[in-house]
Amino acid sequence: MDTRTLPTTDLTDAERIDRLRLIRSDNVGPRMFRSLIRHFGSARAALERLPDLARRGGASKPQRICSEADARAELEASERLGVRLITPGEDGYPPRLSELDDAPPLLGVRGIRDALMRPMIGIVGSRNASAAGLKFASLLAHDLSDAGFVVTSGLARGIDQAAHRASIEGGTVAVLAGGHDRIYPPEHVDLLSALLGHGAAISEMPLGHVARAHDFPRRNRLVSGASLGVIVVEAAVRSGSLITARLANEQGREVFAVPGSPLDPRAAGTNGLIKQGATLITEAADVIQAVEPIMGRPLDLREDESEPLAGDPDATERTHIVDLLGPTPTLLDDLIRLSGASPAVVRTVLLELELAGRLERHGGGLVSLI
Amino acid sequence: MDTRTLPTTDLTDAERIDRLRLIRSDNVGPRMFRSLIRHFGSARAALERLPDLARRGGASKPQRICSEADARAELEASERLGVRLITPGEDGYPPRLSELDDAPPLLGVRGIRDALMRPMIGIVGSRNASAAGLKFASLLAHDLSDAGFVVTSGLARGIDQAAHRASIEGGTVAVLAGGHDRIYPPEHVDLLSALLGHGAAISEMPLGHVARAHDFPRRNRLVSGASLGVIVVEAAVRSGSLITARLANEQGREVFAVPGSPLDPRAAGTNGLIKQGATLITEAADVIQAVEPIMGRPLDLREDESEPLAGDPDATERTHIVDLLGPTPTLLDDLIRLSGASPAVVRTVLLELELAGRLERHGGGLVSLI
Repeated sequence: MDTRTLPTTDLTDAERIDRLRLIRSDNVGPRMFRSLIRHFGSARAALERLPDLARRGGASKPQRICSEADARAELEASERLGVRLITPGEDGYPPRLSELDDAPPLLGVRGIRDALMRPMIGIVGSRNASAAGLKFASLLAHDLSDAGFVVTSGLARGIDQAAHRASIEGGTVAVLAGGHDRIYPPEHVDLLSALLGHGAAISEMPLGHVARAHDFPRRNRLVSGASLGVIVVEAAVRSGSLITARLANEQGREVFAVPGSPLDPRAAGTNGLIKQGATLITEAADVIQAVEPIMGRPLDLREDESEPLAGDPDATERTHIVDLLGPTPTLLDDLIRLSGASPAVVRTVLLELELAGRLERHGGGLVSLI
Repeated sequence: MDTRTLPTTDLTDAERIDRLRLIRSDNVGPRMFRSLIRHFGSARAALERLPDLARRGGASKPQRICSEADARAELEASERLGVRLITPGEDGYPPRLSELDDAPPLLGVRGIRDALMRPMIGIVGSRNASAAGLKFASLLAHDLSDAGFVVTSGLARGIDQAAHRASIEGGTVAVLAGGHDRIYPPEHVDLLSALLGHGAAISEMPLGHVARAHDFPRRNRLVSGASLGVIVVEAAVRSGSLITARLANEQGREVFAVPGSPLDPRAAGTNGLIKQGATLITEAADVIQAVEPIMGRPLDLREDESEPLAGDPDATERTHIVDLLGPTPTLLDDLIRLSGASPAVVRTVLLELELAGRLERHGGGLVSLI
């Protein structure tokens, strides 16, 4: 399915199961998912070709493909928890989130789906926040909520929970880093229950998944991606909130930062963001003024760049391309130029390697062998 | 004298006395002083014409013209205090200050003149500052002083005195709102004595002048005008420091502001300045980085726009122009258009009215009758 069209018809159950199998298979992430669907036309067709592609990529062991039984079991367990797995364009999939290149192909949604269709503002900040930071996060969240915005955050300790609590009545969205049955931190289970009354919780992770360190930045891209902009309330230097701000910026989202005294280390990150161009805000009105023009903007669902794959590269070409790769990140464009192969062939070989777990993709079109 | 040429030769005593008489005469401010010198060629020639001009402007009582005896007495009393009255281009007249359209024609300088020739940074802020604000002002002033900058401020309570105290060793400049013998606040007389060891105090006011409310904004234009940029450390909304920031901006000086928590009313002014485009700073290095490119820039001593006066407008023209004026501010350009008189004639009539104490000049070329 092309997210660009945002169809109102829902998926068939069979197609939903196929998509779930595809995204839950080894080495398939949101970007790979899109490539495969685009090339093979459907999740079912892609699933049929996966073993062959991974084998050609030189997988050292057979790639684990999610079975139909496992996918069905996840779907049923999710439904028992009140979690619906939905795809871009379906009701309850945050519209701005579907703009991302790496939008989750299936998002586990629990709570009031209407809340996910309204304009959202992310609020993030230190887990170890000051009393003033907590108070200000509450004020902002309350005022934004009153103005009709849904406040999005990560259900963490500190600023996150303060923002959620102050916007429960207006609807607030918690973006989880683990599965819906693995709430972190555990003491926020009650907060989660409370916010589900008018808001929602979302996760792209399977049930049973316990969030680990690298899952948090991945989750943070959903906080910013679903939102018109993200407010960083308090942040030390080198904190997770600054990662969220960076991702928000890369996604074309507004970045807002709350200033603080240079003598307060918890303001070092936010003051630094303002120096780098983030918008200084001191009240909800500053945020609303900045996002109002964007709210009227149509979704930026870019036509997928035409990046076709090749049918089946010949063995010589494949060997040549693999030989050009190493542990040092290399530009895709350089690979195409040096190999003399067509872009479609190079992309196909890289996809095979990735499915085989042998390729790492870095930012800026750089790839390396693992 | 044309400040553009910044001559290294000093004035003769006679010319200094004439200039002092002219600027100390009723209704002659720095801009009027420049017009008169430009039109009549010397202070002596202008002094000879003053009574006639003011009479034509319809002065209700004879304009008070500073006598040679009074001027000589001020000069001698100043010298007994260690204050030298100097003119733009002379040693000890801050070079950046001479860029201003309303640069004082004579500046009373006391202390180390070398300090006045070095690059300056203004530091201003609340008189009623917080402990954190005072500490940060001290840190900044100390670090800027260490880096070779002269810190300029207004000798006031709060931020001003903290900035002066922390930069005494490197040289700091106090800009006074009253005369050199009327130090305000009186408890800062010792601070002033201490800073004169490596720094200086400057005033454009005559000895004996006690600063009143409207003298402070006038003084603030000298703090910013002498400096490459001005730092506002802490400021509530509607505070004098914000006036300094506005003047600095109008003068083309850099405006720096120290951020603070939105919950702190003493940061409301500085956060507001940042929203309006001031540069957020959290350390001296931020300031130095911003002013370094400007330091290499030659002085912006614009060629005086050619705005000649007329010899002696005829009575009909004068009456017509005065009739067009009223208490509502009117644009000079409209006056020229509506009167049908030449720009030189209109400017001359306005100068006469101003000398007679009947004209008020507002910003943006607006004038009104008093």
